[in-house]
Amino acid sequence: MTWSIGDAAETSKTISESDVYLFAGITGDFNPMHVNAVYASNTRFGSRIAHGMLVASHLCTVLGMTLPGPGTIHIEQSLRFLGPVAIGDTITARVEITEIFSVERRRRMRLRTTITNQRGEVVIDGEALVKPPA
Amino acid sequence: MTWSIGDAAETSKTISESDVYLFAGITGDFNPMHVNAVYASNTRFGSRIAHGMLVASHLCTVLGMTLPGPGTIHIEQSLRFLGPVAIGDTITARVEITEIFSVERRRRMRLRTTITNQRGEVVIDGEALVKPPA
Amino acid sequence: MTWSIGDAAETSKTISESDVYLFAGITGDFNPMHVNAVYASNTRFGSRIAHGMLVASHLCTVLGMTLPGPGTIHIEQSLRFLGPVAIGDTITARVEITEIFSVERRRRMRLRTTITNQRGEVVIDGEALVKPPA
Amino acid sequence: MTWSIGDAAETSKTISESDVYLFAGITGDFNPMHVNAVYASNTRFGSRIAHGMLVASHLCTVLGMTLPGPGTIHIEQSLRFLGPVAIGDTITARVEITEIFSVERRRRMRLRTTITNQRGEVVIDGEALVKPPA
Repeated sequence: MTWSIGDAAETSKTISESDVYLFAGITGDFNPMHVNAVYASNTRFGSRIAHGMLVASHLCTVLGMTLPGPGTIHIEQSLRFLGPVAIGDTITARVEITEIFSVERRRRMRLRTTITNQRGEVVIDGEALVKPPA
Repeated sequence: MTWSIGDAAETSKTISESDVYLFAGITGDFNPMHVNAVYASNTRFGSRIAHGMLVASHLCTVLGMTLPGPGTIHIEQSLRFLGPVAIGDTITARVEITEIFSVERRRRMRLRTTITNQRGEVVIDGEALVKPPA
Repeated sequence: MTWSIGDAAETSKTISESDVYLFAGITGDFNPMHVNAVYASNTRFGSRIAHGMLVASHLCTVLGMTLPGPGTIHIEQSLRFLGPVAIGDTITARVEITEIFSVERRRRMRLRTTITNQRGEVVIDGEALVKPPA
Repeated sequence: MTWSIGDAAETSKTISESDVYLFAGITGDFNPMHVNAVYASNTRFGSRIAHGMLVASHLCTVLGMTLPGPGTIHIEQSLRFLGPVAIGDTITARVEITEIFSVERRRRMRLRTTITNQRGEVVIDGEALVKPPA
């Protein structure tokens, strides 16, 4: 498998209430802005929003399933949470190769990683460093 | 509520097979190192390991539930994945305040965020920037 | 326990978004017509639809819980998917005995198996061959 | 996209206890051979086994995600359940094109669909008829 700078891949999904509740159940993060509709209606978001890490995790789905794909080792990830994702929003997670390191540098790859919503707004931005599969 | 540099909080949990499978189900990340025991037995890890973001998400649990607590807005997160977490490992997610910004700088707080396993090994290291609740 | 040709049983359920998302999570089938509301709105179905096998699985619920009941071994199943089931549709899974084989033929039973929606439309049709409990 | 007879694709996964319990929860099929370890230890299987339809559903994952891929409409499926899948077994779902129908026949494709376990035993055999994406 060979990769080039600029190669990109993405996946899309509508974030459901069950996604948010299961994620709360796995992590124990019951922050009321995620699971309390009454509380959330009084915040500046106006409704329950998804956990940022739930949304960001879809970046790893693309890294691990498509580009570079199965066997990828995640080494570093930076994330900037730029806007909320409400239950019912449809997100697109996109990764794009920005740098490829030579064998001497232990075979690594850097990617720009972004999440956009159905209006094309970037809600999460960041960068991944991964070791691609052999 | 007032906070000081050095304030810290943590939470611990044993990562179960169902955590890993539900997380795969939420995100669509069915990378075989997470859900295929035969494949995983032939990797350098030797068994199925948890998704890095699943483990890292427990940092947000501490941020959102304890320090700074409910209402916290997550702004930035950096993560370095230093070692694997196997199904059955018990992790501790810890956050510690390293910097507090004044009102003029829009009330932000920086924290060191680490995950250790039951052997005290740091498996994830990183930093969070958050806006604490009013 | 004795059974007669024509004996029938059924179960009904409203298919929820969480059913569809959990099923996607178990099977890894994130086909966008199931989990992407934006994509689905542009298909001839107009909205996200349930996985056909999720709906069909309710036939096994009737076979395994009611007729012939606990202990039943499912041997063969044929399925024709005749129409979509949207999130929010209420389905009825029905099984009806059409043939009973003698002990000499290793005690088997054939059933017609159908799923209808809340408008009485048959959305799945097919046949099961089972070994009833002793 | 063009396809040829003999084209094949597959996916593999270890079936977890949580898969079986969630599937029981979605479908209501609490047949004791799936969720009662005491009962199951006294059957000829010796332990709790996965629902046949849970296992078979992974065929649709390959059809809908890989071959022919996203947008595929499932029209017919036949299944023969040949052997049990225990919790902890690693299954491989494989589909292989056996027949392609011309446009005049409304663009359909027939595939042989099989599930094997980690010992290479075929536990489910059958055939799918699908309408591939345009």
